[in-house]
Amino acid sequence: MTGEATPRPEARAPRGFVDRRSATLRTERRILEAVSRVYEAYGFEALETGAFEYADALGKFLPDADRPNEGVFALRDDDEQWLALRYDLTAPLARYAAQNWTSLPKPFRRYAFGPVWRNEKPGPGRFRQFIQCDADTVGSDRPEADAEIIAMAVEGYAAAGLARGAVTIKINARGLLNGLLAANGVDDPGQRLASLRAVDKLDRLGARGVSDLLGAGRLDESGAYTKGAQLPARAIDAVLAFLAAGGGGRRDTLQRIAGVIGGSDEGEAGLEALSRIGGALDSLGVGETEAVFEPSVVRGLEYYTGAVFEAELTLEGGAGAAFGAIGGGGRYDDLVARFTGERTPATGFSFGVSRLAAALAAAGVAETAPRGPVVILTLDPALMSDYFAMAAELRAAGLAAEVYLGASGMRAQMKYADKRLSPAAVIVGGDEIAQGVVTLKDLDLGRDLAAQVSDNRAWREERPGQITVPRAELAAAARRIVEAAS
Amino acid sequence: MTGEATPRPEARAPRGFVDRRSATLRTERRILEAVSRVYEAYGFEALETGAFEYADALGKFLPDADRPNEGVFALRDDDEQWLALRYDLTAPLARYAAQNWTSLPKPFRRYAFGPVWRNEKPGPGRFRQFIQCDADTVGSDRPEADAEIIAMAVEGYAAAGLARGAVTIKINARGLLNGLLAANGVDDPGQRLASLRAVDKLDRLGARGVSDLLGAGRLDESGAYTKGAQLPARAIDAVLAFLAAGGGGRRDTLQRIAGVIGGSDEGEAGLEALSRIGGALDSLGVGETEAVFEPSVVRGLEYYTGAVFEAELTLEGGAGAAFGAIGGGGRYDDLVARFTGERTPATGFSFGVSRLAAALAAAGVAETAPRGPVVILTLDPALMSDYFAMAAELRAAGLAAEVYLGASGMRAQMKYADKRLSPAAVIVGGDEIAQGVVTLKDLDLGRDLAAQVSDNRAWREERPGQITVPRAELAAAARRIVEAAS
Repeated sequence: MTGEATPRPEARAPRGFVDRRSATLRTERRILEAVSRVYEAYGFEALETGAFEYADALGKFLPDADRPNEGVFALRDDDEQWLALRYDLTAPLARYAAQNWTSLPKPFRRYAFGPVWRNEKPGPGRFRQFIQCDADTVGSDRPEADAEIIAMAVEGYAAAGLARGAVTIKINARGLLNGLLAANGVDDPGQRLASLRAVDKLDRLGARGVSDLLGAGRLDESGAYTKGAQLPARAIDAVLAFLAAGGGGRRDTLQRIAGVIGGSDEGEAGLEALSRIGGALDSLGVGETEAVFEPSVVRGLEYYTGAVFEAELTLEGGAGAAFGAIGGGGRYDDLVARFTGERTPATGFSFGVSRLAAALAAAGVAETAPRGPVVILTLDPALMSDYFAMAAELRAAGLAAEVYLGASGMRAQMKYADKRLSPAAVIVGGDEIAQGVVTLKDLDLGRDLAAQVSDNRAWREERPGQITVPRAELAAAARRIVEAAS
Repeated sequence: MTGEATPRPEARAPRGFVDRRSATLRTERRILEAVSRVYEAYGFEALETGAFEYADALGKFLPDADRPNEGVFALRDDDEQWLALRYDLTAPLARYAAQNWTSLPKPFRRYAFGPVWRNEKPGPGRFRQFIQCDADTVGSDRPEADAEIIAMAVEGYAAAGLARGAVTIKINARGLLNGLLAANGVDDPGQRLASLRAVDKLDRLGARGVSDLLGAGRLDESGAYTKGAQLPARAIDAVLAFLAAGGGGRRDTLQRIAGVIGGSDEGEAGLEALSRIGGALDSLGVGETEAVFEPSVVRGLEYYTGAVFEAELTLEGGAGAAFGAIGGGGRYDDLVARFTGERTPATGFSFGVSRLAAALAAAGVAETAPRGPVVILTLDPALMSDYFAMAAELRAAGLAAEVYLGASGMRAQMKYADKRLSPAAVIVGGDEIAQGVVTLKDLDLGRDLAAQVSDNRAWREERPGQITVPRAELAAAARRIVEAAS
């Protein structure tokens, strides 16, 4: 391949990219299958777009002249156009919907899963490639479309293995806070954005800190001063009352919110949206703790235009909060309009698959241990044909099986079987062939002993967890061991 | 998102990248599932590496200073190292195996599937992203490892839906031709490579053309002259006899090859490898037409080091040949050594998933038509809660179902259901609610008529393929229609 003079490249995965082996992949694939089944049950159609989009179509992180890679992995195509790897599944959907709008069934309901890429500084648990699994409805402004997305999220988490009640979807509507500010005479877009930023810090700073940030400003422990949103005192009180309106059932929360909001068209519209979302969630059988209204949820400051959703893991003792959001979404009515100029209402939800896998582990959801194949040891190369016939027989009986194909001796072969998490080894030499029998070793029983055995003879005399059966009973005997092990 | 002044981006997928909808994805996913199951039955473990590798690790298409994108999609990371998207699944495996060699079970058997990227000029049927599905054994030089890879390919194509016998795996060993040349006094590497190139043109040029290219050279119809390998006449005759040795059962072919080869260590080693591959294929139950020895197979000139495999679709009337290879592989003993300096024998096979999907279509393998969800029409927005409850009920009964969430009238809703390939529409207005009934329309029966109906009233009077049942029988009635349709 390369000349003698070429220095050897270093074998390493690029920074921020991980190699995933079967244990991790099993969980991921199970999640994707379970969530896809839910999406399909709700009538969402699979769609896969390519990894690349034209950078101008991705929009959000438009490459600038100096540093085209900021946030995205971008490169120039041979026709000098910038291509960028998708950083989420929503931007490609918006491009696809705009490109095919006339021919698509409307509303267009699609789900998608696959890797997305972020050109960010990698760190612990922070990767530059990860998997998302999204469903979106494009072309419906009905709040019921949001409700359905929320119901699918609830069902998706349950299907993935989290007990119902272990996840709460928190719902808010962007219009509520805006309406509240309007009703209190705050119309300045800058003040509104600053208020939203302040509210977003509730978890970290508490009501007092938010109050400061809504007002004149806040001095933190380090001595740094953050200028506030400069709201009048009346507006600050109203926002704090709004933020305190969460908790309890959806109907109760809605009533408390209604008591605070009122007096602005935007606020009334937000209330009406939440009310209709609540009605549909009831009809869909979504429990009161599975989806709640929570005024403090902010999410994606400049991205979402209406309802927003955030999934939180609720473990005993509050351990779930440490995970932050394990999924989220909302209504984004402007994304398709970027292309078409026509406002196209859209709403969706995204599962962070790796984070969900971690949540499953934290919630103690038992993942069955991956099992390796039955390994047929190669004691005598002259018997290869017999070994292969045995492997084929085991596979025909529905058992994963392989012939050891390395060149090492008995002990290394047993270690290999152990490393592969093999439930059973098949041990056949010339004697067994002559006698018309096969020996099977139950590796779960004998796993601890295997490392101590130093030679073939000693091993075969001790026979820990070993049985010898007629050759014709190989598959049945192997099946008994595999089934006992699993 | 973007200011008013920003020009609207064009909504289009980048050149060479395709958006795939459910019909295509169903086939692809079915293939990947079926082939993965075969791989796992043989004891191969799932592995996924990231999309990027360091460019020097990819090796084959090392970017040069002038044009780093040649063949691969490459970009410079913020630490000035070149990253490149993988162009196949083997190069990342070699990197992974070298990186983790000490801790891996050996031989290391892994399978992988996913997109790969080629920065090439796109054309009809020629994409810059496509899906491969590979299995490889790293660390075994036994020919039986090759046989197993071949047996999995045979089973994989069958599991994907191609009838046994519709695919033939052609097997050759690189050492045979080399040994033949050595036995005839041809040792020059340049002559050997030129001979290999000549043999590779057998399909296109026939024995006569190959003979010219093995000798002095060849003048083609356009008047272009290709210099030949300059072999002596005796060697040319031997090569042509070798190329004619294919056809019939594996044992017969092997005998004919043995009659031509002989007299060189490399040739003998190649014969021995094929013979052992043949023995293992017999033990594994691989039929004589499912895998054949074929001396004319070349494949990957500078890549493979031993046995090579190529899957060909064998349709009636020779239509399969038009597809070219629908998969292939072989033994590549130098790929891991690039990193470690130690020769590490490896062998593998790669399914081209898109090409296999096309082959399935060409072979007339009936793919069940994708079905949309049952669509519950929205005749009266005041009944949304009822509609949602019905949808939840249908889903609980195992049927995909959705409530129409657009804002259009009856006719457009029927067109929507039609476009979604929905088997049934549920039609419920105030009257039905009052009477405690639901109306279901069998859309396969009524699909042709739907377009002609111009208004709600006429539609409901005609009721083509429509039934009305008590509300409690909704799920049962819908199931009858869906099952009749599928």
